[in-house]
Amino acid sequence: MKLATVEHERAERTALVLGQGERLLLLERAHHLTTGEHAPALATMQLIIDGGDPVRRILDRLAAREPAEAVVAASEVRWLAPLPRPVQIRDFGGFMDHFRNARARIQGIPAEQVELPAVMLERPLYYFTNRLSVTGHDSDITWPAYSSVRDYELEFACVLGRGGTDITAAEAPSHVFGYTIFNDFSARDTQLEEIATGLGLSKSKDFADSNVLGPWITTADEVGDPYRLTMTARVNGEEVSRGTTAGMHHTFADMIAFASRSTRLHAGEVLGSGTVPTGCGLEHGRFLEPGDTVELEVSGLGVLRNRVVA
Amino acid sequence: MKLATVEHERAERTALVLGQGERLLLLERAHHLTTGEHAPALATMQLIIDGGDPVRRILDRLAAREPAEAVVAASEVRWLAPLPRPVQIRDFGGFMDHFRNARARIQGIPAEQVELPAVMLERPLYYFTNRLSVTGHDSDITWPAYSSVRDYELEFACVLGRGGTDITAAEAPSHVFGYTIFNDFSARDTQLEEIATGLGLSKSKDFADSNVLGPWITTADEVGDPYRLTMTARVNGEEVSRGTTAGMHHTFADMIAFASRSTRLHAGEVLGSGTVPTGCGLEHGRFLEPGDTVELEVSGLGVLRNRVVA
Repeated sequence: MKLATVEHERAERTALVLGQGERLLLLERAHHLTTGEHAPALATMQLIIDGGDPVRRILDRLAAREPAEAVVAASEVRWLAPLPRPVQIRDFGGFMDHFRNARARIQGIPAEQVELPAVMLERPLYYFTNRLSVTGHDSDITWPAYSSVRDYELEFACVLGRGGTDITAAEAPSHVFGYTIFNDFSARDTQLEEIATGLGLSKSKDFADSNVLGPWITTADEVGDPYRLTMTARVNGEEVSRGTTAGMHHTFADMIAFASRSTRLHAGEVLGSGTVPTGCGLEHGRFLEPGDTVELEVSGLGVLRNRVVA
Repeated sequence: MKLATVEHERAERTALVLGQGERLLLLERAHHLTTGEHAPALATMQLIIDGGDPVRRILDRLAAREPAEAVVAASEVRWLAPLPRPVQIRDFGGFMDHFRNARARIQGIPAEQVELPAVMLERPLYYFTNRLSVTGHDSDITWPAYSSVRDYELEFACVLGRGGTDITAAEAPSHVFGYTIFNDFSARDTQLEEIATGLGLSKSKDFADSNVLGPWITTADEVGDPYRLTMTARVNGEEVSRGTTAGMHHTFADMIAFASRSTRLHAGEVLGSGTVPTGCGLEHGRFLEPGDTVELEVSGLGVLRNRVVA
């Protein structure tokens, strides 16, 4: 099942994605058409997530019926982030070769000579990023005036369906609601200045619409094994990144277990995978210019397209 | 005006703090007693903040009346964080001598020989921390099992009353709702491991109740000038830290201006000052043991007391 949040007739609506995203079934409208009753539990993606299995059964029934009067064309809506207001966003370092490639570029040495701190290999480290600077598919990203080295990051993310504390890696998959593509736009010049302090990242990752999620959430049952997906990026139609989720050194299960140690995770929190190797301009030396269109594609999760503007 | 959130008769209540915190005026109860009407706009601190001037006028009227039947003793309540679910928390590096002292300890050199990266002096850098691992005054902090170097951080924080984008430093004070004390408990052994990666901080700052706010929010009008407050810390009654907010290299106005560049800040977001010089064990070489009680005092903002337990 693919679930989206869209703006339709000036209101935020949840929708079931039909086909490859050409059409959408508006969920509250479909519920009203088929039952005669309103369904406030379908009003937002967070409510759908919080609703758990009972709401999932409602969605299954609506998907089976697919009342035509609740179907709209994608051209009639504006895509929002599928979860427009994540409870929190942690972005992890899941792929080690991304860090090797990036450091090789910065230090001017071959990637195989880069020695990563052992702690990065041992633990799925992460940082929190701005949960409210989130946008969706097909939106324009206005680059901040303080930066001129514009970069994308090809990631995917899991959305938690259930919270918990001290979740084991074995239990972790049952806490995942679904997966979506994540473009972690990065002001790379600013990042290189900030990273020297050791305190983490400020304005390099914190500007309007810097976190793009979408185009929709594919539920965990439909994704199946998340570690055999192909990830590609195109700039103005030309492929610039290609990788696979099979190369994740730290899995989402590891991340959930690690982050939940001695603290509670909540339904609606988002965990980013980190950048797949080759998945950003810093690794291959080509950055974005105003007017460039970036498309991130992950097999089974769709295509997330955004244009960068000045 | 001093505003708190407390648990009273098993429910979360907002309250006006009377005297030095010995008694509290329960706001919804006071409103009902004096007007005969319920006041859902007073139910949570976020709603009070969002309510702006009209709600402030209601609070002023309730404070003037102070109906005795709505007053409870502090012993009858459990203190929660005054804003139990901040919209976000950014923690800044406002005081430069804290960083000099900490680096001097780590590097084994005198503080005056520490050279900070220029970017730290130029910009009020920050990181996001877990907005949901928040607790209040008088709660016990269960230290995570993965850490044995337990530290407090003596900070204060401002709570935004109005959002905005590209707020100027001159406009920034009008966006502040009030101030509160912030203890940014830190697993220092874990932090030293994580900081080597340059990616920021993960589990060193992200465990249950790691962010303590309170005991209440003192509104900006009552604080007046926030840069002439005395900050002290005591461990088991013995003073271990003493500083003043006059030493802030980056003010809250600078922080609001910086963070809001090219992105929106929101009412209910919290900005931490960073640690005042001498304001943590890392600076003076004495860490916390299970059973220790830490009291942070900031003139005009009260005393924030917590006990660390294993």
